[in-house]
Amino acid sequence: MRFDIVTLFPDFFTSPLHSGLLGKALARQIATVNLVNPRDFTTDKHHKVDDEPYGGGVGMLIKPEPIFAAVESLPQLPKREVILLTPQGQTMNQPMFQELATECDQLVLLCGHYEGIDDRVLHLVSREVSLGDFVLTCGEIPALTLLNGVVRLLPGTVGKAESLKAESFEAGLLDYPQYTRPADFRGLKVPEVLLSGNHQRIAQWRKEQQVQRTRDRRPDLWQAWVEQQQQ
Amino acid sequence: MRFDIVTLFPDFFTSPLHSGLLGKALARQIATVNLVNPRDFTTDKHHKVDDEPYGGGVGMLIKPEPIFAAVESLPQLPKREVILLTPQGQTMNQPMFQELATECDQLVLLCGHYEGIDDRVLHLVSREVSLGDFVLTCGEIPALTLLNGVVRLLPGTVGKAESLKAESFEAGLLDYPQYTRPADFRGLKVPEVLLSGNHQRIAQWRKEQQVQRTRDRRPDLWQAWVEQQQQ
Repeated sequence: MRFDIVTLFPDFFTSPLHSGLLGKALARQIATVNLVNPRDFTTDKHHKVDDEPYGGGVGMLIKPEPIFAAVESLPQLPKREVILLTPQGQTMNQPMFQELATECDQLVLLCGHYEGIDDRVLHLVSREVSLGDFVLTCGEIPALTLLNGVVRLLPGTVGKAESLKAESFEAGLLDYPQYTRPADFRGLKVPEVLLSGNHQRIAQWRKEQQVQRTRDRRPDLWQAWVEQQQQ
Repeated sequence: MRFDIVTLFPDFFTSPLHSGLLGKALARQIATVNLVNPRDFTTDKHHKVDDEPYGGGVGMLIKPEPIFAAVESLPQLPKREVILLTPQGQTMNQPMFQELATECDQLVLLCGHYEGIDDRVLHLVSREVSLGDFVLTCGEIPALTLLNGVVRLLPGTVGKAESLKAESFEAGLLDYPQYTRPADFRGLKVPEVLLSGNHQRIAQWRKEQQVQRTRDRRPDLWQAWVEQQQQ
């Protein structure tokens, strides 16, 4: 899969794209990441990308021309989505990552900045996506999140083992608690059942823990899960 | 404010901590970031941080000892929170960032990895926080998000202007569309009202757009806003 990230701060991505599992996946060319700076598509001598908002208001907006020029400079693969990262968009979730990983061969990610982007860039965009209900200084973090979550699902990035875990999350319940050695750490003990060797009891305990944790911590997910069970 | 990030991949943070507004804020010492690697607190010669889960299962878990040792090596300021980044936690949002920025002088952020962390680390933790309902390859991205969102709120990071925008988000409505020059871009025109110079009409149009956008895109936020208005 090809990613094109349209960003005024391409240097942001240097170390995250070389770190951990994502770094390994990119080194093995499971996906490619192309960074595009709209500033390289300005035509004035000061390479100005922002201007004041019409109608008054605080801060500066990114102008439409350099964004259009940057996106139009890119090759276009058959199954492309152009995604604007913005708090106004649809909130990212696992089914969205799954859909993008399965259905697309190219994702163009537009990172917002300053006060925002001229609204006419929506004419370039197939989807607006939000990381969550909060404000950050930059759109690079949401773009990196989406990149990571989608690349994680591409064949070869993680072993079959880790993939299974995601399916548990997709089934709508939080994970069960896990423990490793030592069995007794400063008096904090691993639950007996996990040392029993009784696989059926262990599976049952884990499922109960999942349901209980989800009910306690995320009543919204639990409610959806209960309704799903009743169908 | 002091941040301590407990991470097996400290190199992840190199470029994001030097980029954009966050980079500027850290250079001006509005906040400090200390990276701590649990691997430096292992006592065996292979510096092993993970082990197999009790009760069977796929993947590897981070052991409790190196995490406890890493956190216990840190100085402890009076208003400290120790936060585990995990999909099992409370979902990040703007009020949470506001609370952490106002109430704390030290945030210790524990990044998860592999299949997860031994559940006993919860004894170290004052709060579990999730970035969203999806799975990533690492906890560094959620930690960076929280860092960015909280530092953004500290005095001096962004101008007064930008701060005002966040308040609009906190009030529970999405932002209105914004436009900058040119007034006509390839036939796409800026709405007439914004060129009118009539500040009252502009303010009214923007409010209408906020309500309409929120209703269309985020019925959940809109519903909460309506209920708030009726009180």
